[in-house]
Amino acid sequence: MSLRGLGVDPRCRCIETESQRIGKLIESVELFPPSPHCKDTEIIATLKVSRKEICLDPTAPWVKKVIEKIIANKTPAA
Amino acid sequence: MSLRGLGVDPRCRCIETESQRIGKLIESVELFPPSPHCKDTEIIATLKVSRKEICLDPTAPWVKKVIEKIIANKTPAA
Repeated sequence: MSLRGLGVDPRCRCIETESQRIGKLIESVELFPPSPHCKDTEIIATLKVSRKEICLDPTAPWVKKVIEKIIANKTPAA
Repeated sequence: MSLRGLGVDPRCRCIETESQRIGKLIESVELFPPSPHCKDTEIIATLKVSRKEICLDPTAPWVKKVIEKIIANKTPAA
Protein backbone atom coordinates (compact mmCIF):
# COMPACT_ATOMS: atom_id res chain seq x y z
CA MET A 1 0.00 0.00 0.00
CA SER A 2 1.32 3.40 -0.87
CA LEU A 3 1.12 5.95 1.91
CA ARG A 4 1.55 8.94 -0.35
CA GLY A 5 -2.18 9.35 -0.67
CA LEU A 6 -2.42 9.74 3.08
CA GLY A 7 -0.10 12.71 3.09
CA VAL A 8 2.60 10.74 4.90
CA ASP A 9 6.13 10.82 3.60
CA PRO A 10 7.27 7.19 3.60
CA ARG A 11 10.91 8.06 4.23
CA CYS A 12 13.10 9.74 6.81
CA ARG A 13 12.99 13.54 6.70
CA CYS A 14 16.56 14.23 7.75
CA ILE A 15 19.62 13.53 5.60
CA GLU A 16 22.15 15.36 7.75
CA THR A 17 22.03 17.08 11.14
CA GLU A 18 23.36 20.40 12.42
CA SER A 19 26.51 20.00 14.48
CA GLN A 20 26.73 23.59 15.75
CA ARG A 21 24.91 24.67 18.90
CA ILE A 22 22.10 26.77 17.52
CA GLY A 23 19.82 26.78 20.58
CA LYS A 24 19.59 30.59 20.65
CA LEU A 25 18.26 30.67 17.10
CA ILE A 26 15.47 28.17 17.67
CA GLU A 27 11.87 29.29 17.29
CA SER A 28 10.34 25.84 17.74
CA VAL A 29 11.31 22.17 17.68
CA GLU A 30 9.38 19.29 16.17
CA LEU A 31 9.95 15.71 17.33
CA PHE A 32 9.09 12.70 15.16
CA PRO A 33 9.26 9.35 16.97
CA PRO A 34 10.42 6.22 15.16
CA SER A 35 7.78 5.01 12.70
CA PRO A 36 7.39 2.53 9.85
CA HIS A 37 8.68 5.32 7.59
CA CYS A 38 11.84 6.06 9.55
CA LYS A 39 13.44 3.86 12.20
CA ASP A 40 15.09 6.70 14.10
CA THR A 41 13.65 9.65 15.96
CA GLU A 42 13.98 12.86 13.95
CA ILE A 43 14.17 16.34 15.42
CA ILE A 44 13.56 19.36 13.22
CA ALA A 45 14.10 22.89 14.51
CA THR A 46 12.51 25.94 12.93
CA LEU A 47 14.80 28.97 13.24
CA LYS A 48 13.74 32.46 14.29
CA VAL A 49 13.50 35.16 11.60
CA SER A 50 14.52 32.95 8.65
CA ARG A 51 11.98 30.22 9.58
CA LYS A 52 14.49 27.80 8.08
CA GLU A 53 14.07 24.15 9.11
CA ILE A 54 17.16 22.36 10.37
CA CYS A 55 17.56 18.75 11.44
CA LEU A 56 19.14 18.20 14.85
CA ASP A 57 20.92 15.11 16.16
CA PRO A 58 18.74 13.45 18.85
CA THR A 59 21.85 11.89 20.39
CA ALA A 60 23.75 15.20 20.77
CA PRO A 61 23.89 16.32 24.42
CA TRP A 62 23.27 19.98 23.49
CA VAL A 63 20.11 19.01 21.62
CA LYS A 64 18.81 17.10 24.66
CA LYS A 65 19.59 20.13 26.84
CA VAL A 66 17.72 22.46 24.50
CA ILE A 67 14.63 20.24 24.71
CA GLU A 68 14.91 19.88 28.48
CA LYS A 69 15.10 23.66 28.80
CA ILE A 70 12.01 24.15 26.66
CA ILE A 71 10.05 21.61 28.73
CA ALA A 72 11.24 23.43 31.87
CA ASN A 73 9.61 26.60 30.51
CA LYS A 74 12.90 28.27 29.63
CA THR A 75 14.19 29.67 26.37
CA PRO A 76 16.97 27.52 24.94
CA ALA A 77 20.31 29.35 25.15
CA ALA A 78 22.71 26.51 24.28
CA MET B 1 5.12 46.97 15.72
CA SER B 2 2.68 44.38 14.54
CA LEU B 3 4.14 40.94 14.03
CA ARG B 4 1.30 39.71 11.88
CA GLY B 5 3.18 40.70 8.73
CA LEU B 6 6.00 38.40 9.78
CA GLY B 7 3.73 35.38 9.93
CA VAL B 8 4.08 35.15 13.71
CA ASP B 9 1.00 34.76 15.84
CA PRO B 10 1.40 37.31 18.66
CA ARG B 11 -0.51 35.19 21.18
CA CYS B 12 -0.35 31.85 22.90
CA ARG B 13 -1.50 28.95 20.73
CA CYS B 14 -3.00 26.76 23.45
CA ILE B 15 -6.18 27.56 25.31
CA GLU B 16 -6.58 24.21 27.04
CA THR B 17 -4.47 21.06 27.30
CA GLU B 18 -5.26 17.36 27.00
CA SER B 19 -5.42 15.64 30.37
CA GLN B 20 -5.66 12.05 29.09
CA ARG B 21 -2.53 10.05 28.29
CA ILE B 22 -2.56 9.97 24.51
CA GLY B 23 1.08 8.98 23.92
CA LYS B 24 0.14 6.02 21.74
CA LEU B 25 -1.78 8.26 19.36
CA ILE B 26 1.02 10.74 18.81
CA GLU B 27 2.49 11.12 15.32
CA SER B 28 4.76 14.06 16.20
CA VAL B 29 5.23 16.70 18.89
CA GLU B 30 6.08 20.38 18.42
CA LEU B 31 7.68 22.39 21.22
CA PHE B 32 7.43 26.18 21.38
CA PRO B 33 9.69 27.79 23.97
CA PRO B 34 8.57 30.91 25.88
CA SER B 35 8.63 33.96 23.61
CA PRO B 36 7.44 37.58 23.60
CA HIS B 37 4.15 36.21 22.24
CA CYS B 38 3.56 33.63 24.96
CA LYS B 39 5.28 33.48 28.33
CA ASP B 40 4.91 29.73 28.75
CA THR B 41 6.26 26.81 26.77
CA GLU B 42 3.62 25.27 24.54
CA ILE B 43 3.57 21.67 23.35
CA ILE B 44 1.38 20.67 20.44
CA ALA B 45 0.99 17.02 19.44
CA THR B 46 -0.19 15.92 16.00
CA LEU B 47 -2.18 12.70 16.22
CA LYS B 48 -1.82 9.70 13.94
CA VAL B 49 -4.49 9.08 11.29
CA SER B 50 -6.67 12.10 12.14
CA ARG B 51 -3.67 14.52 12.03
CA LYS B 52 -5.56 16.49 14.69
CA GLU B 53 -3.45 18.94 16.71
CA ILE B 54 -3.75 18.74 20.49
CA CYS B 55 -2.13 20.92 23.15
CA LEU B 56 -0.30 19.04 25.91
CA ASP B 57 0.56 20.25 29.40
CA PRO B 58 4.37 20.75 29.64
CA THR B 59 4.19 20.23 33.41
CA ALA B 60 2.38 16.86 33.21
CA PRO B 61 4.73 13.97 34.08
CA TRP B 62 3.30 11.76 31.28
CA VAL B 63 4.03 14.47 28.71
CA LYS B 64 7.63 14.74 29.88
CA LYS B 65 7.93 10.95 29.66
CA VAL B 66 6.56 10.93 26.11
CA ILE B 67 9.18 13.48 25.06
CA GLU B 68 11.98 11.65 26.88
CA LYS B 69 10.99 8.43 25.09
CA ILE B 70 11.03 10.12 21.70
CA ILE B 71 14.49 11.59 22.35
CA ALA B 72 15.63 8.12 23.44
CA ASN B 73 14.61 6.83 19.99
CA LYS B 74 11.53 5.00 21.26
CA THR B 75 7.90 5.27 20.26
CA PRO B 76 5.82 6.92 22.99
CA ALA B 77 3.50 4.38 24.62
CA ALA B 78 2.29 6.42 27.60
